Amino acid sequence: MSRCSPAPRLCDLGEDHVVAELTRNLPFSKGKVRVGPGDDCAVIGRARDERWTLLKTDAVVEGVHFSKDEDLRRVGWKALCRTISDFAAMGGVPEHALVTVAARAEMEFARLKDFYAGLRKAARRFEVGIVGGETSRSLDSFFCSIAMTGWVERKRCVTRSGGIAGDAVYVTGRLGGSFLSGRHLDFLPRLAEARWLVTEFRLHAMMDLSDGLGADLPRLAKASGCGFEIWEDRLPLSAGCTSAQALAHGEDFELLFTLPARVSSRLEAAWRERFPRLPLTQIGVLIPRAKIRKNQPNPVNRGFDHFA
Amino acid sequence: MSRCSPAPRLCDLGEDHVVAELTRNLPFSKGKVRVGPGDDCAVIGRARDERWTLLKTDAVVEGVHFSKDEDLRRVGWKALCRTISDFAAMGGVPEHALVTVAARAEMEFARLKDFYAGLRKAARRFEVGIVGGETSRSLDSFFCSIAMTGWVERKRCVTRSGGIAGDAVYVTGRLGGSFLSGRHLDFLPRLAEARWLVTEFRLHAMMDLSDGLGADLPRLAKASGCGFEIWEDRLPLSAGCTSAQALAHGEDFELLFTLPARVSSRLEAAWRERFPRLPLTQIGVLIPRAKIRKNQPNPVNRGFDHFA
Repeated sequence: MSRCSPAPRLCDLGEDHVVAELTRNLPFSKGKVRVGPGDDCAVIGRARDERWTLLKTDAVVEGVHFSKDEDLRRVGWKALCRTISDFAAMGGVPEHALVTVAARAEMEFARLKDFYAGLRKAARRFEVGIVGGETSRSLDSFFCSIAMTGWVERKRCVTRSGGIAGDAVYVTGRLGGSFLSGRHLDFLPRLAEARWLVTEFRLHAMMDLSDGLGADLPRLAKASGCGFEIWEDRLPLSAGCTSAQALAHGEDFELLFTLPARVSSRLEAAWRERFPRLPLTQIGVLIPRAKIRKNQPNPVNRGFDHFA
Repeated sequence: MSRCSPAPRLCDLGEDHVVAELTRNLPFSKGKVRVGPGDDCAVIGRARDERWTLLKTDAVVEGVHFSKDEDLRRVGWKALCRTISDFAAMGGVPEHALVTVAARAEMEFARLKDFYAGLRKAARRFEVGIVGGETSRSLDSFFCSIAMTGWVERKRCVTRSGGIAGDAVYVTGRLGGSFLSGRHLDFLPRLAEARWLVTEFRLHAMMDLSDGLGADLPRLAKASGCGFEIWEDRLPLSAGCTSAQALAHGEDFELLFTLPARVSSRLEAAWRERFPRLPLTQIGVLIPRAKIRKNQPNPVNRGFDHFA
């Protein structure tokens, strides 16, 4: 008798594996594409251009990113701000957005207008132009995808992959409980903070925290060819959260970045002056890859996996 | 007793009304946005730039744009080509694409890989780079949105709104039956044809036919401040289709364009030489707006309405 294993489903493989396989060897002309799939934004431009173009798309899905009876004004805000947060993560500036919506034909128009009111509010707040989009019918869930273009000065562009062993690892704000507290619907993307950071300091690597530190820091470290240590007792916790929750909960939309440890004290002093009300915390270090297994249990997959 | 009318739903209002209301007074800086919502692509650039940037997003939804058991390789092809068709409609060139997918966690990975195989095939065929995207879970339908950037020479950019009363109205190819024949999954966007048209002729207005001539020509005419006459007996019909079906069926992805009637004979002769296997047919004229009601019944809404 032959054993027959069923065809693997997305949930058998997990998000990182699925994305890695799908984006392997995607067709694009390497001449102009500085950063392809796998970072917060794609980066387009010639090596010597003063400014590079940033491209990003993101989505919110009913039942996944927000509940069915949620105030769609807040969901619209969240949809635009999620994508803006990815521009912050590159050190860049978002500029134009396109909105793709799929909605049931029986949806009340007032609800869809609420959603757009949230989009508009976020667009005005962060000076993003909504320049077009597409509207389609959906048979069930409400779905919205935001595509955004923007730019970053070549010298200020920060990716996930520039981290170096020995770097200090920082996060802004507090972690955990974003879904439970509803903060994920009202968060402020750290655009001004990121622009200040890339203007004042030479960051090695940066990303925004969307799936939880426990999933996202390993991604940054892996992209940088490093291992990492997380100092769990130093994690900046949201009110009522444990450090395990701060690692595992997603949707924080805080900045995670690394820079040379020798810069730490200057960074921390300047930050306190510039952003006195927002914590900035060193939560660990990047270490050489070879040391990963010896030094600490790897918290990979303790964050949110879309397909797990 | 007071009469109480229920809150209007999307299907009570129809797609054009919904989109018009949602996109009214969207926030964007008019300085750099040449064309905002309402055309096939958004157009970004300064008035004197040699090249303008084109932005577009489009979506395919399971159960709406394709059936549940469809070969996802063909759906992937369609998803990318729909968006490419919008770049053709502006006379432009698509360059980079971002792919947003929402899929059930229980979906077989092989099906999602098939979808990407279709995307890759279309991307290679039309020289579009897939530079990033986003993958999310969905609770029910499979959903994919394609965001694309590209460019067009300022002098060759064609919108929907440049038509002038007296213009001849042309369509490429044959109309109707796209869904029934399965052609909507294998169609070739008219990119080479559009580039040739805008290089050789000064088109007044252009769009691609996605919702059927009966819905799309009124949109072009309205954007141009004109009325129109359709010569129903001259419509180029797909095999087995009536002229009513050619007007009402969507997903043709042919080009619809207008130019001065005096150019017609030169256009038709040059087209036959350059594209001998693809029909080009004058199917009517633009007329002054005031004549609309007198001259002909307006076929508005005989095409596909997403929410009707």
